[in-house]
Amino acid sequence: MDLAAATPLSHQTRYRVIYGDTDTMGVVYHANYLRWFEIGRSELFRAMGLPYLEIEARGFMLPVSEVTCKYLAPARYDDVVVIDAALNPGFRAGMQFDYVISSEDGRVLHATGQTRHAFVNQDAKVVRPPDFVRDLIRSSESAKR
Amino acid sequence: MDLAAATPLSHQTRYRVIYGDTDTMGVVYHANYLRWFEIGRSELFRAMGLPYLEIEARGFMLPVSEVTCKYLAPARYDDVVVIDAALNPGFRAGMQFDYVISSEDGRVLHATGQTRHAFVNQDAKVVRPPDFVRDLIRSSESAKR
Amino acid sequence: MDLAAATPLSHQTRYRVIYGDTDTMGVVYHANYLRWFEIGRSELFRAMGLPYLEIEARGFMLPVSEVTCKYLAPARYDDVVVIDAALNPGFRAGMQFDYVISSEDGRVLHATGQTRHAFVNQDAKVVRPPDFVRDLIRSSESAKR
Amino acid sequence: MDLAAATPLSHQTRYRVIYGDTDTMGVVYHANYLRWFEIGRSELFRAMGLPYLEIEARGFMLPVSEVTCKYLAPARYDDVVVIDAALNPGFRAGMQFDYVISSEDGRVLHATGQTRHAFVNQDAKVVRPPDFVRDLIRSSESAKR
Repeated sequence: MDLAAATPLSHQTRYRVIYGDTDTMGVVYHANYLRWFEIGRSELFRAMGLPYLEIEARGFMLPVSEVTCKYLAPARYDDVVVIDAALNPGFRAGMQFDYVISSEDGRVLHATGQTRHAFVNQDAKVVRPPDFVRDLIRSSESAKR
Repeated sequence: MDLAAATPLSHQTRYRVIYGDTDTMGVVYHANYLRWFEIGRSELFRAMGLPYLEIEARGFMLPVSEVTCKYLAPARYDDVVVIDAALNPGFRAGMQFDYVISSEDGRVLHATGQTRHAFVNQDAKVVRPPDFVRDLIRSSESAKR
Repeated sequence: MDLAAATPLSHQTRYRVIYGDTDTMGVVYHANYLRWFEIGRSELFRAMGLPYLEIEARGFMLPVSEVTCKYLAPARYDDVVVIDAALNPGFRAGMQFDYVISSEDGRVLHATGQTRHAFVNQDAKVVRPPDFVRDLIRSSESAKR
Repeated sequence: MDLAAATPLSHQTRYRVIYGDTDTMGVVYHANYLRWFEIGRSELFRAMGLPYLEIEARGFMLPVSEVTCKYLAPARYDDVVVIDAALNPGFRAGMQFDYVISSEDGRVLHATGQTRHAFVNQDAKVVRPPDFVRDLIRSSESAKR
């Protein structure tokens, strides 16, 4: 129970925008928000005690099967953005994460989005989420209550 | 009418995958499909007789306001993919494009997706689609019939 | 000799700049020229009759060990650039390619650069260039004369 | 003098590798090291009390005119790399930075490199380094002694 209480369902990571993230419109190129989603869920996995490399070490990969992103207000060079990544426990076929990208002071909502992921085994077959992942999600949910 | 008939509503572009597009999972990194969507709609604009730079020259920008992508089968290094971009005339608030990414021989469907775009004027305000765009879409639709 | 004559030492590839290649300075982000170098040498390998995948199929990888690039005049959104990649037969320890990036009409020299590559075998050891590569280079050189 | 003493000539920044940085060879794609160079010098500018945006606010841009990078040992997914960026005061025509990319524990030297930059004014002309930059460098040098 104490252990479960330590398992977060969401995590925040800061990232500072570089020139390489921007485009000639003077804002962050839209595809790069998907990189931020990856940073966010990667750090969430780590915070949950299950670094993504550990999932791979157990024989599973978790490729993105679907992504959506709504762009609300552009982020610009040298901005610090906050990447909020949350595990959505409602998606049972694989994993779903929901993201909010906001400014450091929280006043600007840059984007929202979500990714869905399938579990793939070493034979490149899509499989059900392995038990160690389902246990982790279940313990996180009960911790939440 | 002959002129209208020359205005395509969709366009196909070929692209060959480089190492820089791939990731350590051995496949194209998912965010890079959004670059392909950009290539596709950029070439569609050109084929429609309205290069994107011309839209900018008339005082409008067309940032992405929303993107979705479903990943069906991975593309890999050195694959030639076909980017099919189509204007969706049903979205009136801005512009919507639908995309299909497939293998060169048409046998593999790598991904499908769509982007929505808002028209932004030089004061960074969202505005209605300018007349020259609506005329173009209308003429394309009538040409289609 | 006829065969050798068909082996080019250099190759030109066209590429059109997208938004995703540019940065907020209004020009192509400097790191992306290295992607163009990769496109150039990849197409040169293909033109030489030795696609890079064939090198990998024979058990070798050819990672970049060194890169230099001089930026002379910026390329911008929607520009078509010509990537000229040439094999430099003077580098015997691995492979060296020299690049020139210019505008489509040849009037603007955007950048020059070079990459050096080591041959790495399946045990991740650096090895001497395999015979099939040295034969190819030698035949190209004699064809040149 | 105390003020000068606070001006560092070098700065270290940590960065964690994501999937989007890697390629199908299982390592970080070589072009992405140039992004790390940018992160490094950007944080060095900030540590020197002169954020790059401040240089732009004073009417100057500082595009990369030349880059070199030597790749010594690959960095991989989830590695934390340390980006060491140092101002090289010996280059008077613009600015030069020297970089060392190493593993977090300092045991692996991933890469070394340098970038040179020209000062460009608002008319897109290359100009001499502005006084406020030369003063900063001079004070840093004297602080070093």
